Amino acid sequence: MTTVPVGYTYDTQLAASPVSEQILTELLTDVMWTEGDARALRRAGEILLPRTSEILDAWYDFIGSTPHLVTVFRRRDGEPDPEYLARVRGRFERWVVDLCTRDFDSQWLAYQEEIGLRHTPAKKNTTDRADSPASHVPMSHLIALIVPVTVTIREFLRRGASEADDVEAMYQAWFKAVTVSVTLWTRPYAPDLW
Amino acid sequence: MTTVPVGYTYDTQLAASPVSEQILTELLTDVMWTEGDARALRRAGEILLPRTSEILDAWYDFIGSTPHLVTVFRRRDGEPDPEYLARVRGRFERWVVDLCTRDFDSQWLAYQEEIGLRHTPAKKNTTDRADSPASHVPMSHLIALIVPVTVTIREFLRRGASEADDVEAMYQAWFKAVTVSVTLWTRPYAPDLW
Repeated sequence: MTTVPVGYTYDTQLAASPVSEQILTELLTDVMWTEGDARALRRAGEILLPRTSEILDAWYDFIGSTPHLVTVFRRRDGEPDPEYLARVRGRFERWVVDLCTRDFDSQWLAYQEEIGLRHTPAKKNTTDRADSPASHVPMSHLIALIVPVTVTIREFLRRGASEADDVEAMYQAWFKAVTVSVTLWTRPYAPDLW
Repeated sequence: MTTVPVGYTYDTQLAASPVSEQILTELLTDVMWTEGDARALRRAGEILLPRTSEILDAWYDFIGSTPHLVTVFRRRDGEPDPEYLARVRGRFERWVVDLCTRDFDSQWLAYQEEIGLRHTPAKKNTTDRADSPASHVPMSHLIALIVPVTVTIREFLRRGASEADDVEAMYQAWFKAVTVSVTLWTRPYAPDLW
C-alpha cells in the first residue's frame, strides 16, 4: 500500500464518532471478541494484505454481476460509473488492511462513522463527486453483504496459511470484525434506535 | 414441538410484510444462497430440532451474563423479568425450527416483519405485556448478535452429524439464513433507507 486512495481520510482530523469506546466494547462483547481473535486477525492481515487486489476482484465480480447491487454505482444515464467504482474500490481495499491492522480506538470509530455516512443520503456520492440518482446504499444490502465479505475470505486465508496457522481462528476473527464494522456503518441509518 | 409458544403468531392471519418476495430474492442473492444451502439447512434442522432447548440454554447463558444485553428484559425495578425472558425464549426456540423448516415465502416474510416490529417501539413489550422501560432492542446489538447465533451452532451440528453429513455446508447455510432473517428484522428501524 504505497498510495493513499482518493477520498481516504482515516489519518486526518475526523469528527468524533457518536459511538463511544464503551459502546464499542459492548459490540465486541456481542460478537464474543477475545484476545485470541485480536492475534488471529493480525496474522490474517499479514496473509491478506498482499492479496487485497485479488480479494477486491472477487467482491467486484460479485457486485458487478448482481444488478441490484451495481445499481448504487449507476449514473443518470443508467450505466455504472467506472470512475466511481474504481475510487470506492481503492478505499474498500484499504478497509481490508485497516480492519486487520488498525487498533479499534476512537480514530477507528471515527472513520467507521465516516464510512457509514458515505452510504447514506448525508454523504453518498459527495466524496467521489458521483452524479448518481442512488441517494443511499440500502441498509438491507449493507447488512446482508456480511456473508459474502466473510465467506470469500476463507479460501484466501487457507491458501496463504503456513502449517503453524489456524485458518479457522483467523476466519472467525475476520467474521467478528466484519460484523462489528458493518454494525457501526448502520448507525446513521437509524440514529435514534441504533 | 408440541405446544405453541405464547405470542407465537406465525400460523395466523398476519399483515403482509412490506418486503416483497422480489426483495427477498435479492437478499438471498446477497448472501449467495443456493439450492445446496436450502438442502443443507433442512438437514441442519433435523439435527438442531431436538436440541433447541440446549441451544437456547447456550444463548440465554450468554445474554444473561451480559448486562447490556439482559437490560432489554429489565422491569422498572431494574431486575430482569423472568416471565418476559421465558416467553421470548419459547418463541426464540421456535425461530430455530422455523428457520430450518419453513419455506421462505410471503408468510415467512410476514412473520419476520412481526418479529422485527417486536424489537422496536412499535411493538416491544406489548406481546408479553412486559412493563419494561426499554422501549426497543438497540439495532446495533440485534445485528452484532448474528455472530454468537451463528458460531455457537457449529458444535451442535458437529455433534449431531452423521458420517454422510457435511457440517461446513450446514453451518454456512445456517449463517446465511440467520443473516437474512436478522436483516429483515432491521427493516422497521429504518424503513425509508432499508
